[in-house]
Amino acid sequence: MKKNIIVGQSGGPTAVINASLYGVIKAGLERPEEIGSVYGMVNGIEGFMQDRYMNLSAKLNEEELEILKQTPAAYLGSCRYKLPEDLSDPFYPVIFQKLEQLQIGYFFYIGGNDSMDTVSKLSRYAAANGSEIRFIGIPKTIDNDLIHTDHTPGYGSAAKYVAATVREIALDASVYQQKAVTIVELMGRHAGWLTAASVLARKEVGDNPLLVYLPEADFDLEQFALDVKAALDQQPNVVVCVSEGISDKDGTFICEYGSAAQTDSFGHKMLTGSGKVLEAFIRNRYGVKVRSVELNVSQRCSGMVVSMTDIEEAAEAGRAGVAAALKGSTGQMIAFRRKDGETYELECVTEDVNLICNQEKKFPTEWITKNGTDIGPEFWDYALPLIRGEAKRKMKDGLPVYLYRK
Amino acid sequence: MKKNIIVGQSGGPTAVINASLYGVIKAGLERPEEIGSVYGMVNGIEGFMQDRYMNLSAKLNEEELEILKQTPAAYLGSCRYKLPEDLSDPFYPVIFQKLEQLQIGYFFYIGGNDSMDTVSKLSRYAAANGSEIRFIGIPKTIDNDLIHTDHTPGYGSAAKYVAATVREIALDASVYQQKAVTIVELMGRHAGWLTAASVLARKEVGDNPLLVYLPEADFDLEQFALDVKAALDQQPNVVVCVSEGISDKDGTFICEYGSAAQTDSFGHKMLTGSGKVLEAFIRNRYGVKVRSVELNVSQRCSGMVVSMTDIEEAAEAGRAGVAAALKGSTGQMIAFRRKDGETYELECVTEDVNLICNQEKKFPTEWITKNGTDIGPEFWDYALPLIRGEAKRKMKDGLPVYLYRK
Repeated sequence: MKKNIIVGQSGGPTAVINASLYGVIKAGLERPEEIGSVYGMVNGIEGFMQDRYMNLSAKLNEEELEILKQTPAAYLGSCRYKLPEDLSDPFYPVIFQKLEQLQIGYFFYIGGNDSMDTVSKLSRYAAANGSEIRFIGIPKTIDNDLIHTDHTPGYGSAAKYVAATVREIALDASVYQQKAVTIVELMGRHAGWLTAASVLARKEVGDNPLLVYLPEADFDLEQFALDVKAALDQQPNVVVCVSEGISDKDGTFICEYGSAAQTDSFGHKMLTGSGKVLEAFIRNRYGVKVRSVELNVSQRCSGMVVSMTDIEEAAEAGRAGVAAALKGSTGQMIAFRRKDGETYELECVTEDVNLICNQEKKFPTEWITKNGTDIGPEFWDYALPLIRGEAKRKMKDGLPVYLYRK
Repeated sequence: MKKNIIVGQSGGPTAVINASLYGVIKAGLERPEEIGSVYGMVNGIEGFMQDRYMNLSAKLNEEELEILKQTPAAYLGSCRYKLPEDLSDPFYPVIFQKLEQLQIGYFFYIGGNDSMDTVSKLSRYAAANGSEIRFIGIPKTIDNDLIHTDHTPGYGSAAKYVAATVREIALDASVYQQKAVTIVELMGRHAGWLTAASVLARKEVGDNPLLVYLPEADFDLEQFALDVKAALDQQPNVVVCVSEGISDKDGTFICEYGSAAQTDSFGHKMLTGSGKVLEAFIRNRYGVKVRSVELNVSQRCSGMVVSMTDIEEAAEAGRAGVAAALKGSTGQMIAFRRKDGETYELECVTEDVNLICNQEKKFPTEWITKNGTDIGPEFWDYALPLIRGEAKRKMKDGLPVYLYRK
């Protein structure tokens, strides 16, 4: 008997989270004998609990789907909503009743660690309560911090944005003769994957960024001052890339030296300003011209600088999710496995979502070199294939055309 | 008798200042009967006084010239160097001797207000001292604040970057249900042209950015609070675009409420942080989620989001400069005149550089609407043609290929 699909997006936006949505919708449309409609939760599980959803398969035509595939941010809207730990909480019978009413057979949630926690809880409740609804997680995060997957959709485009933008900032910083330090602050609370991507900006060895600091290595202000001085002796224009989440050996975030930290609904520290703190520190210490640049949200939502490899892989993750669910999988996350061999090849597999949720994949400390100021060659081999390929963007009047939820 | 060309770049980088350099070099190469070599000053007039220059026509091949045309920032390097006001200063005989030694007949300086001041002084010294060297200014600034020209090369690409990026930031800001304010701070010390470009981000009337504040209108914190509240009553996600240079009715820069201001060598106030000041103000006032985003240097140095119209016009300005100089012009700046008629057409003319230097073209106050919070339709007609057209970028391994001075 035919069942319906429901799909939601959760957590922070990325450049390709809609490509995964595209993949789920396309795969659903291609299986009319098993799939009725493809519904979308508006604002994730939080919106769905308020009965906010839409029929995507009925609403979107072929052309709109192609635009959706290249639209950044989350078309369905997102949420940061943590499900109750206690599976006997009244929340669960309510949501399962809503799912049954819509004759949902397959539930897909596109997101990161916290979203996989949602998939884990719903699939465990289903198993314990005899529901046949299958729950699959589709990975998504620019932070690239999900375990049991080679990388995550969203990282390749964010890494490409960071590398291209830092290359341009280094060019900009090089136009004057006067000694100057430019500090670029990059996203990544606890994992340095995105900050590491800044080294791809180098066109050759010895290029800026000369110094790169990840959260995985303890940050020491005095050592930093020495590092910057040595770099300035090497060349007049020094570009430094730091993660928003760098902290000292006592675990105090550098940004806390300058600004009070707030906390989001998952208890994450909301970080800003490590770049500003270091800017003031170096200016006061050496009296040189110092500028700090926070790349901010464009890292995750730029649709102008995206990796076509990332878009295609994100779409494939969505398709693979539907295929896995129809084969009977539940409580699984779609993961990427890199095939051995010279050329880059990827396959989609499924991994137990319960082993993935609420875990963080750190940047390998053995890839961090030069006393915590640089990244080793292993990272180039890992990351370069992920940023390749240019999207053929639809433009109108000189601006990108995106799909908006009406 | 054959003479040589020397060309320099001065002031802040733009996405197309190298396209103007390309235009000068190409035009020089096309007139072998009149032009010997095309020299480039390294780091502008400051570097040239240190005998730092290069032979561009001998050094760059056809392929390198095409890459140069699409390379952001300043290939030759730049400077901020103010020539002595007193034309009897020993500086002048020294530099003219250097120019004569190189058999320079034609001097081109690509830059903004301050660079035109350099062209003015050198051309006046030449006239007063019987030198036949001809001095021509090629306009360049993302600020679009040069008078006697329809617009300036560099503005179109910066405006396109701002419009595209604000459109994406608005998309990113719209994914959550919770009320939130995003404040985007844009470049423009005293002229609001670039901040005005943020309204082009709207796909339809009533879209974000809902509020736009330019330096040309007095900024009032209490009125701002009321504007934001009214906007939040309209929709949950409000994007506000402000110029770095907004100031209150007493002329105090809003950023000064929060941070100390520094001064550059031209006496300009170096502004940062109006966005941060307003972020804290609104958060404290209303307790809503507020984020501020400073677009920073990518506005002027992004090569990934550029206007092909801007690139071609910048190259044409360089060519027109050479043509004007060979016809006998000196002490002139190349200016753009928009032809009347339905379709956008531009012609290059020459204007007296002495009337242009050290002047600022403000954004027309009659184009500022809704009590200083929006921009009128005249601006769309003015700006849309300037951001059209996509550059075919040369990419390698997923990253842009640029030309670097060796």
